[in-house]
Amino acid sequence: MSVAGVGEFGLIDRVTARLSYGSTVLLGPGDDAAVVAAPDARVVASTDVLVEGRHFRRDWSGARDVGHRAAAANLADIAAMGAQPTALLVALCMPPELETGWAEELADGLAAEAAKVGASVVGGDMSASPTLTIAVTALGDLGGRPPVTRSGARPGDVLALAGRIGYAAAGLTVLTRGFRTPRLLVEACRRPEVPYAAGPHAARLGATSMIDVSDGLLADVGHVAKASGVAVDVRRDAFEVPRQMRDAAQALGVDPYSWLLAGGDDHALAATFPSAVALPPDWRPIGRVAEGSGVTVDGRPYDGPAGWDHFR
Amino acid sequence: MSVAGVGEFGLIDRVTARLSYGSTVLLGPGDDAAVVAAPDARVVASTDVLVEGRHFRRDWSGARDVGHRAAAANLADIAAMGAQPTALLVALCMPPELETGWAEELADGLAAEAAKVGASVVGGDMSASPTLTIAVTALGDLGGRPPVTRSGARPGDVLALAGRIGYAAAGLTVLTRGFRTPRLLVEACRRPEVPYAAGPHAARLGATSMIDVSDGLLADVGHVAKASGVAVDVRRDAFEVPRQMRDAAQALGVDPYSWLLAGGDDHALAATFPSAVALPPDWRPIGRVAEGSGVTVDGRPYDGPAGWDHFR
Repeated sequence: MSVAGVGEFGLIDRVTARLSYGSTVLLGPGDDAAVVAAPDARVVASTDVLVEGRHFRRDWSGARDVGHRAAAANLADIAAMGAQPTALLVALCMPPELETGWAEELADGLAAEAAKVGASVVGGDMSASPTLTIAVTALGDLGGRPPVTRSGARPGDVLALAGRIGYAAAGLTVLTRGFRTPRLLVEACRRPEVPYAAGPHAARLGATSMIDVSDGLLADVGHVAKASGVAVDVRRDAFEVPRQMRDAAQALGVDPYSWLLAGGDDHALAATFPSAVALPPDWRPIGRVAEGSGVTVDGRPYDGPAGWDHFR
Repeated sequence: MSVAGVGEFGLIDRVTARLSYGSTVLLGPGDDAAVVAAPDARVVASTDVLVEGRHFRRDWSGARDVGHRAAAANLADIAAMGAQPTALLVALCMPPELETGWAEELADGLAAEAAKVGASVVGGDMSASPTLTIAVTALGDLGGRPPVTRSGARPGDVLALAGRIGYAAAGLTVLTRGFRTPRLLVEACRRPEVPYAAGPHAARLGATSMIDVSDGLLADVGHVAKASGVAVDVRRDAFEVPRQMRDAAQALGVDPYSWLLAGGDDHALAATFPSAVALPPDWRPIGRVAEGSGVTVDGRPYDGPAGWDHFR
């Protein structure tokens, strides 16, 4: 059955029947708006949109994968402020001939990813559109801590990373060249594994700045350097190229460091910490903050591809 | 200059330079997420999406109009819970060849509409897309009051309306038939005039249920009737057909009550009140709640067009 066949309200009923609600949800879908707990008396909010053909392809990713990824991209932004995600709202634009099963599985993926951090899908909107588009807004709670912004890095700080990088970019290259393996990389491109807990953890440890790595490590560290008015140097030897990535790079004739340093979409977290902070295992040091501006790799400008611009 | 020409970050800079931030904005655009005050320790949140060709046409509405309308549709949902809007987040998907001026004027419209209620555009996302799409999320604060849902109407309550209805639908019919006047109606279709203050006002007066009229009065009152498990009767003589609407209806051969009773997009608010409440001038009585189910007009089923389904 197509989404046009069941109609807007029929589809909303089908989708909301699949959702469940955590303790932060005071009023879920079905009214003009949802009501979500904000115990901190501040709410952290971020919006990210995925467009078919631009951010995902239905022949490369299942609906559930796309749901996981759309949720993850937004939940990672909340975690990158040092906050705990509480809720997602989803605007879903669909071609009328889309199978309802696709929308239902998308909702399953969104809900399952949100559940990893105790968050819930609390509302949304649906419309017909020639272009399948998923705009997600995530909300979160700071738990009494100040938000960790991009602008607090100070000379002498250590740059550290939580989570994987380069996997999603490697997987995308693999898929683009017409392959479906290695599975590790292709799956990473379909569903990021976001180190959500590392965000609030970094905030409690006293991180001076933090960012979600979505445009590519060097590009995103560049945002931190610019916002903080500092220079950042990334150490290439901080990255071990995983075996499957090394093999794929060799087979495809790609420098694996272009995936590691410029690939986005793994939604790792990068943060800076005062050098006195003893970093726990989820945060590994990868560089240094200094006076100046810009990002260097081993002290030199990086001449590989820099990152991602969504209009180019 | 096209949006592809200035690029994602260039366009974000241009747009955010035009915004200003009210006192509820603790951290505005430019980081992974915004931080908004939620003094009530709960946040009200709603998402609504506008798709070109489905919800607006660029030859019928300017970018600023579309911005006003996208903001209004969302802010009205917050008001309909009895809450005070605080912030908007905007996901904007644009054809790469779109002029940057269009996006900038859209932002002006969004910000100006939000400013009417003291709210601010605090964040968003941009992407290229073949289909111009604007997904907006609005946040709001309940000020210590319980949310006014759709499910609290009780037999004996009075149904009341705040704001205009039928104007936007009449304006749309006028435009569809190739006319550009009467201006009053056409302008109403471009930019709704939402009675924002009437939402929190109704909550303070003890409204038992409330809804934003976006699908059409009878359809939306039907949502209240269903959620509350009651019947609602609407009095046709509660509506005076404005002169310009009557003239347009006559010229176009349309029953003006089809606009009044089934037209959406004016974002009036409909609410039910205990009969003992003395209604202030912004809320005029238009019907009654009784035991039973469904919506009637003057005691009979309404046989005109019922409302709007976004997939049909």
